[in-house]
Amino acid sequence: MIGPQKAVRTTVVTRYRGSDSTRRRDSVAVEEPLEIRVSWTEGTTRRIDPLAVTMRTPGNDFELVAGFLHGEGVVSGADDLRELTYCRGVEEQEYNIVEARLATGRVFDLESVRRNFYTTSSCGVCGKTSLEAVEATGCQLLGEGPTLGAALLADLPNRLRQGQGVFERTGGLHAAGLFDVSGEARVVMEDVGRHNAVDKVIGHALLARVLPASQSVLVVSGRASFELVQKAVAAGVPVLLAVGAPSSLAVDLARRFRQTLIGFAHDGGFNVYSAPERIG
Amino acid sequence: MIGPQKAVRTTVVTRYRGSDSTRRRDSVAVEEPLEIRVSWTEGTTRRIDPLAVTMRTPGNDFELVAGFLHGEGVVSGADDLRELTYCRGVEEQEYNIVEARLATGRVFDLESVRRNFYTTSSCGVCGKTSLEAVEATGCQLLGEGPTLGAALLADLPNRLRQGQGVFERTGGLHAAGLFDVSGEARVVMEDVGRHNAVDKVIGHALLARVLPASQSVLVVSGRASFELVQKAVAAGVPVLLAVGAPSSLAVDLARRFRQTLIGFAHDGGFNVYSAPERIG
Repeated sequence: MIGPQKAVRTTVVTRYRGSDSTRRRDSVAVEEPLEIRVSWTEGTTRRIDPLAVTMRTPGNDFELVAGFLHGEGVVSGADDLRELTYCRGVEEQEYNIVEARLATGRVFDLESVRRNFYTTSSCGVCGKTSLEAVEATGCQLLGEGPTLGAALLADLPNRLRQGQGVFERTGGLHAAGLFDVSGEARVVMEDVGRHNAVDKVIGHALLARVLPASQSVLVVSGRASFELVQKAVAAGVPVLLAVGAPSSLAVDLARRFRQTLIGFAHDGGFNVYSAPERIG
Repeated sequence: MIGPQKAVRTTVVTRYRGSDSTRRRDSVAVEEPLEIRVSWTEGTTRRIDPLAVTMRTPGNDFELVAGFLHGEGVVSGADDLRELTYCRGVEEQEYNIVEARLATGRVFDLESVRRNFYTTSSCGVCGKTSLEAVEATGCQLLGEGPTLGAALLADLPNRLRQGQGVFERTGGLHAAGLFDVSGEARVVMEDVGRHNAVDKVIGHALLARVLPASQSVLVVSGRASFELVQKAVAAGVPVLLAVGAPSSLAVDLARRFRQTLIGFAHDGGFNVYSAPERIG
């Protein structure tokens, strides 16, 4: 393989419509594993810890890794990252391993990150503990601004779709986009995984040194879960707009951090679940 | 809390349609963490290992845990499980922790399961290694049968929707259902997470001792990813039908195990990506 992989592949499909069937070539969105490794220096020893494998659509892998590490609290800004590279010293490079080298002096506690994924400290795990865990990572109550018009917000799903290149061919990708308060797209990313699309967008903002994204709207093509709200709150995004439904815990988390959470944004309308004061 | 939690909650929303806004109560799908613990006996010592926390919609938690453990290769059938219970000895039971007690003599290697999630053994991680990893867990090439008519397959998304109770109220839930070869629904489950909906269905089949589900069709309301195909292959399901798009690696995995993978099943048509010989 000469360079990074493509996001779309063609394959043979049999297409059934009623009792007719035809064979033809069609496009599918590529899904491939990406392994994320964190490299850092402990005293005089260089360490490389494998952190996670995520199934993603190739493309913008460095942004994906930067956003993932930000969401997990491993890095808080571009200065925490010294370098992002594909795996070194491999004969047949598949561009499926990214090594994130932390800045000098930055330590990395693999076990602590893994505990975040996996286990809780008490027996009383519940939505409330999940909300408290987000606070414990240092997420802040979001500031007051900005204010956005309802007509502009209602149009953002269309603008997100316009920014999608691969979806039209495959129908198989989630999208996430960061828009400024005038409704201009700053960046739109696509991925088979909706968390990945959001990580790519936030990682792009991190590497461009525009975090916290306190004057922006994050638009996602699917539903709004707890995890998406958590990533947006961590990035300082005041407005999260989802084409689909929010979950109960997504609503609770948005309310706690005064994030404007919008769901069911389609056909010119939408529902606001928290902080409606930013709409005016 | 007296009993297990509900799957739907009402909340106040502000509804925007054009320039009109109204406040009203609306339903949202509940999302709450579920911690999965595995209890087993090492020699004479009883051990309890916390395995994972998944964000799920409450309901059918024991099926979810059984299906999750099956997908991770921790249990292969109902005989491997001695008991499933909510967390014991907690004053304020939130029904968010399930303890799976393994049958006598069954050992559990937490580190090995975690490694499956997180890391790869070689530097050359790629789609091919992911396929090989599924083979290594003991998944078998699927047998020839059954054969299903195109008209019946095309109607399965409608039948899945009919089996959904919560979706109508919240628009926020994925669904998965196991159907027999005559198109009869055996079980339909809903969840904010599509993996969870599939785990609940497969866990239900496991507890009912009908795995491998070699005469059945698994229908999912969303897209078909690598992970969903992997869970279906592990459960011996010969036909996986998705309302949405499949990914490239989902197609590759289905082809390797001779699973009939169907995507874009809506409006009376569908596309077949692998093993079309089961349609006739």
